[in-house]
Amino acid sequence: MSLYHVTIPTFTKMLTNLDHWLEAAVASADQRKFDPEVLLGMRLAPDMFPLVKQVQGACDAAKFAAAYLAGQTAPSHPDTEQTLPEIRARIQTCLAYLGTFSEDQFAGAEERRVAPAWLKGRWVLGQDYVGEVALPNFMFHLTIAYAILRHAGVPLGKSDFIGSMSVKDSV
Amino acid sequence: MSLYHVTIPTFTKMLTNLDHWLEAAVASADQRKFDPEVLLGMRLAPDMFPLVKQVQGACDAAKFAAAYLAGQTAPSHPDTEQTLPEIRARIQTCLAYLGTFSEDQFAGAEERRVAPAWLKGRWVLGQDYVGEVALPNFMFHLTIAYAILRHAGVPLGKSDFIGSMSVKDSV
Repeated sequence: MSLYHVTIPTFTKMLTNLDHWLEAAVASADQRKFDPEVLLGMRLAPDMFPLVKQVQGACDAAKFAAAYLAGQTAPSHPDTEQTLPEIRARIQTCLAYLGTFSEDQFAGAEERRVAPAWLKGRWVLGQDYVGEVALPNFMFHLTIAYAILRHAGVPLGKSDFIGSMSVKDSV
Repeated sequence: MSLYHVTIPTFTKMLTNLDHWLEAAVASADQRKFDPEVLLGMRLAPDMFPLVKQVQGACDAAKFAAAYLAGQTAPSHPDTEQTLPEIRARIQTCLAYLGTFSEDQFAGAEERRVAPAWLKGRWVLGQDYVGEVALPNFMFHLTIAYAILRHAGVPLGKSDFIGSMSVKDSV
């Protein structure tokens, strides 16, 4: 059991789901005859970020968590996306980065000191970081993106949210 | 490293945060002079569950995940809550149940067959279940509850969402 198993596969699966939700959003906009790009500016409250920032936030949460836990420096992915094809490409860029990690690189991640810039020199133990920060933060941005799309009438349901599962048949 | 560390403390912390959000919601309703109980019926879309069901869903997601991973049968917590004090008591009931688990009970949870009723006889390996189902499902209900409150104008921010962290000072 390693921190790899509860981070990289979850990030990968949920970002893949996010891309499917955006694909469904485009289809729904086409059917309802409005420009799908307007969805990127929608927000649930005036002091919450719009959809485009929620997608960027989910990608960055996954990217930084993977980098921190493996003791790497995360690559820069500037928040320059302004269209749905661009933001969907950002998801693919993040997925490709996540795909470069192997379980070996997470050896000792539990004991690693994770010190994001916003902690200003302080740090969190890798084992605490995953459950206290990385997963809640990633899931926050991902779920708010889903909520914006549902609020905008995109036909999605819980099975679209959860996505694939490694279900096995009883023998 | 055990599955205990990425489930029970995360569930406990985030349900504690959820209770704080509800407390802030009551204060905000008082200040804005409306009955806070109306919040329980609010939803982000007509075909999404209202706040009361999202709180029940978050509690159940945590309760069942803990029980499945420890090989226990989850206690029944009927969805009978109709008021904010009642739904906040439900959170405390769930927190008390989560508090009965020790890391020892999660020994071998990675290899355990998790077979919720809705899988109709099929099963998921404990290790896959946590990242593919339990955490995404728990975080879904929790984040949608937060989103409903934010959408309703309750003054909350990202630090309220993330809550406490085991931050250490550099020596």
